[in-house]
Amino acid sequence: MTVQGPESATRSASPAQLLDAARRGDRAALARLLSLVERGGGGAHEVARAVFGLSGAAHTIGITGAPGAGKSSLTSALCNEIRGDAQRVAVLAIDPTSPFSGGAILGDRVRMGDHALDEGVYIRSMATRGHLGGLSLATPEAVRVLDAAGYSWVVVETVGVGQVEVEIAGAADTTVVVVNPGWGDAVQANKAGLMEIADVFVINKADRPGAGETRRDLEAMLTYGSRQDHAPVIVETVATTGAGVADLWDALLAHREHLVDSGELRRRRAARTERELRDVVAARLTERAAALCDGAAWDAARNDVLAGRLDPWAAADRLLG
Amino acid sequence: MTVQGPESATRSASPAQLLDAARRGDRAALARLLSLVERGGGGAHEVARAVFGLSGAAHTIGITGAPGAGKSSLTSALCNEIRGDAQRVAVLAIDPTSPFSGGAILGDRVRMGDHALDEGVYIRSMATRGHLGGLSLATPEAVRVLDAAGYSWVVVETVGVGQVEVEIAGAADTTVVVVNPGWGDAVQANKAGLMEIADVFVINKADRPGAGETRRDLEAMLTYGSRQDHAPVIVETVATTGAGVADLWDALLAHREHLVDSGELRRRRAARTERELRDVVAARLTERAAALCDGAAWDAARNDVLAGRLDPWAAADRLLG
Repeated sequence: MTVQGPESATRSASPAQLLDAARRGDRAALARLLSLVERGGGGAHEVARAVFGLSGAAHTIGITGAPGAGKSSLTSALCNEIRGDAQRVAVLAIDPTSPFSGGAILGDRVRMGDHALDEGVYIRSMATRGHLGGLSLATPEAVRVLDAAGYSWVVVETVGVGQVEVEIAGAADTTVVVVNPGWGDAVQANKAGLMEIADVFVINKADRPGAGETRRDLEAMLTYGSRQDHAPVIVETVATTGAGVADLWDALLAHREHLVDSGELRRRRAARTERELRDVVAARLTERAAALCDGAAWDAARNDVLAGRLDPWAAADRLLG
Repeated sequence: MTVQGPESATRSASPAQLLDAARRGDRAALARLLSLVERGGGGAHEVARAVFGLSGAAHTIGITGAPGAGKSSLTSALCNEIRGDAQRVAVLAIDPTSPFSGGAILGDRVRMGDHALDEGVYIRSMATRGHLGGLSLATPEAVRVLDAAGYSWVVVETVGVGQVEVEIAGAADTTVVVVNPGWGDAVQANKAGLMEIADVFVINKADRPGAGETRRDLEAMLTYGSRQDHAPVIVETVATTGAGVADLWDALLAHREHLVDSGELRRRRAARTERELRDVVAARLTERAAALCDGAAWDAARNDVLAGRLDPWAAADRLLG
């Protein structure tokens, strides 16, 4: 007798079949869809096609901040608040540093601890792997999968405040930047980037000395900032005790309402979609370039240039047809 | 009566006509060809086509080093040595920081001071301007123009030791890295990059304290280095007095001889040509991507994605035909 695990049962299913199963609550099917997205290539495109018309209902929250800010604890506490309102939530933890998600998956199990028995919470880490276009293309695709699978809130958590992380977090509907008391200098250094993306600032570990000063630093930054749309709010939390997390949840609900009422949600999503389409076109062309710089035609063109029979521009044009 | 300057006389000439004139010693025609290369686009491609079969005789020397190392003085002193051997030399001074070459051209006049009456020396600055692919594509094209114009030595001088500068300098046949006494830390920090590209190390301002220590630092680095081909030599100079510059010229002649005899020159040039062809293919595709993400077809594709009628990959494929 062969014992089949849930993963192996989904191995031979098509993306469309997997999506049907995921929408009926099959977590193994959902995991498999996200792995396909993560891996990139033809499988990811098939998933994108299957999912595309079925998403758009979920609200996406980006959470970013330097390592140690307490993002994971905050995300976990936020999940409790969201579940308290009987809404379903998925967490996508982005790890730009890890080439493989082996370690991240172990991390998922630990993180899942608090929510292990709750079918309304889904937590998943994602690393770059082979996805053409990297995380900036894989992330919106994974969000759409979770959206289509019926999670009305999708939290995208990124480590760090580098350019990539800021871009990924900034691709959410609402972006939360997490800082800690005493981070005046770090806030100053990243001021421009943070101001551009933050809809909500969270001062986590607010029971530590310096929370008031950090708040004043942020307020001063916001006063002199140039954002015209909607002034970011500042929330103080202690994620490990849950203090202030209800305020964060209120701030997120208020921001979503503002986005919908002002038409800003539609504008943000349109701009995001347009950016994504540009990225996909660029990724497709990169794919073509790699294919062009290989094989018999490439060898012939290269040899003609080396022999002085053809200048590089003429050779490139011949390769490009 | 209309007085025509040499520049205006060449305005209406084709790249092929300009090249003929430049090869007969017309400096205005040569300047115009280099401006076309610098500007990029169709004019640059025409120049590339006209020049291509006519180059390959010149030996290219890349000179790089941090600002203040004395590269300009060293280049000028080296020009005197090269002229002492009755060979023609052109200098291409790359300024990656300046978007326009207005200031650089003024700099050229100052630099030209020592060689103003010598038809065998040509000095020219180059900035990025509009060239698609930037300096990494414009530089080899400009070198080919100078080569075709009959300069048997082309010195490419770049400021700084950043990635771009190192790439540009490393695209020469022989690469010279200029350091100063007391630069132990700077050398340490850039060790990997310098080791990879340097064929000759020059300790310029060698009359200052610490020259011996810098030499020992370099020697230690070379001892533990992994380069198998040809150990870089170390030369000490005082460019402003000319001391040691004859040694540099000897080292350059010896390195050229080594490159030719070992077949390494052919290998280096083949690798460079292949890299350039890849860059041109990528530049052409970037050009296409920009064209694709604009116009009626782009608007239609974007709107279909926004309306949920088409996923981004399908939309990209429709745009790419």
